[in-house]
Amino acid sequence: MPTKIVDQILLFGDSITQGAWEEGGFAQRLAYVYARKLDVINRGLSGYNSEWAMPVFEQIFPKKGADGPKVKLLTIWLGANDACLDPSPQRLPLDRCISNLKQMISMVQSPNSEYYSPETRIILITPPPFSEAARRENLAARDPPIALDRTSENTMKYADAVIELGKQLNVPVLDVYTPIWEATDNGDTKKLETYLYDGLHLSKEGYTVVYDLLIRTIETKFPELHYDALPMDFPGWKDLDWANPRASIN
Amino acid sequence: MPTKIVDQILLFGDSITQGAWEEGGFAQRLAYVYARKLDVINRGLSGYNSEWAMPVFEQIFPKKGADGPKVKLLTIWLGANDACLDPSPQRLPLDRCISNLKQMISMVQSPNSEYYSPETRIILITPPPFSEAARRENLAARDPPIALDRTSENTMKYADAVIELGKQLNVPVLDVYTPIWEATDNGDTKKLETYLYDGLHLSKEGYTVVYDLLIRTIETKFPELHYDALPMDFPGWKDLDWANPRASIN
Repeated sequence: MPTKIVDQILLFGDSITQGAWEEGGFAQRLAYVYARKLDVINRGLSGYNSEWAMPVFEQIFPKKGADGPKVKLLTIWLGANDACLDPSPQRLPLDRCISNLKQMISMVQSPNSEYYSPETRIILITPPPFSEAARRENLAARDPPIALDRTSENTMKYADAVIELGKQLNVPVLDVYTPIWEATDNGDTKKLETYLYDGLHLSKEGYTVVYDLLIRTIETKFPELHYDALPMDFPGWKDLDWANPRASIN
Repeated sequence: MPTKIVDQILLFGDSITQGAWEEGGFAQRLAYVYARKLDVINRGLSGYNSEWAMPVFEQIFPKKGADGPKVKLLTIWLGANDACLDPSPQRLPLDRCISNLKQMISMVQSPNSEYYSPETRIILITPPPFSEAARRENLAARDPPIALDRTSENTMKYADAVIELGKQLNVPVLDVYTPIWEATDNGDTKKLETYLYDGLHLSKEGYTVVYDLLIRTIETKFPELHYDALPMDFPGWKDLDWANPRASIN
């Protein structure tokens, strides 16, 4: 009997992805609804920009034709750190960020790529808004204090460019920026506290926006991957051949 | 560059394991603390007893010498359904339940087994208490109504036998039964509501008992597998060679 292979949802990104196993995080909620359907694999890397993430992506995305689980859905959520300002080492120019994202998508979608995976559906996620006021306060309290390392204006440019890239490549984009920006009256400091627990990282409410949009994106763009459309691994217990379970488990 | 392999924590069991991706469930909390260290894989099968789970285990546990991730930690949490009463089809005699658990452990630990995996640490988990009153009410409300399908007395026998098996095989046992039983004044109906949301399945508070005991068991029995003892996959961003990240990501 060969070992059962369970395909995957791969979440690739920075700290906002790494933290998605929190209670109410989008990894946790995906894992719950995709139980016995797809495994959720979190490859979030705190602090990474898209340039640093690239060699990681080369190592974690399965090679073409490899045995083992297939990535059925890949979320790429980068740019929040790229959008830092000088002198932050995390800063990466916008065109470089976008070309990295484009390269990752190409690695998966190009028939000539050693990572070619035609069964992988990709969703890009934009950087979310952050709170300049809360972030300034957080950084000022460090030892030594650090000056504000990003602006809403700059992060918004990265978010817009991710949306543009998705249009250009016909890859669905989950725009986290706009709904949170609008729900907080264009980034009101007090209102942003609901969505960002430290000014930068998403709270449960922030992740709820992401999760809801992600499920809606799957529903509309890749309905065959919606959890309700996928068969369950192994029969429900009432459908088993109780006296001879081996006969019903293949 | 070979594909990066991330080893696993494999959670095997019934619905109480399957539901562990809930907010505050022990899968979610493990995934959070083991991020970038071990992947948490949930193979919980709602309603299954140990007899039905056996052919599943044969399919999901990796074969000896197989490529791919190793199971570093395996939790086996079965028996709650075996402890049903006649005429429930889930019922399985105690000796049969224990021999199944023993067989699963032997599959992993016996050098002659095709599943032999000396690097896998195993933790057995006992069935938790349940609420006879809440369960009776839940089953009576079904169409057609179902008579109470288990008793605390019988479930406790299965829990005790799992503890005994662990002693016999020198496999650590996470006894969920006793602490919840004692915290509820020996199964007080009202107090059990805190730990069991429907009389049978664990609430967040119930999973908290499991998670805390599990981490303590890892700490004392397999300290090398505690999340604080494991290196993080890929360097922290401050430790990267920023200008040449490929040099620091291997």
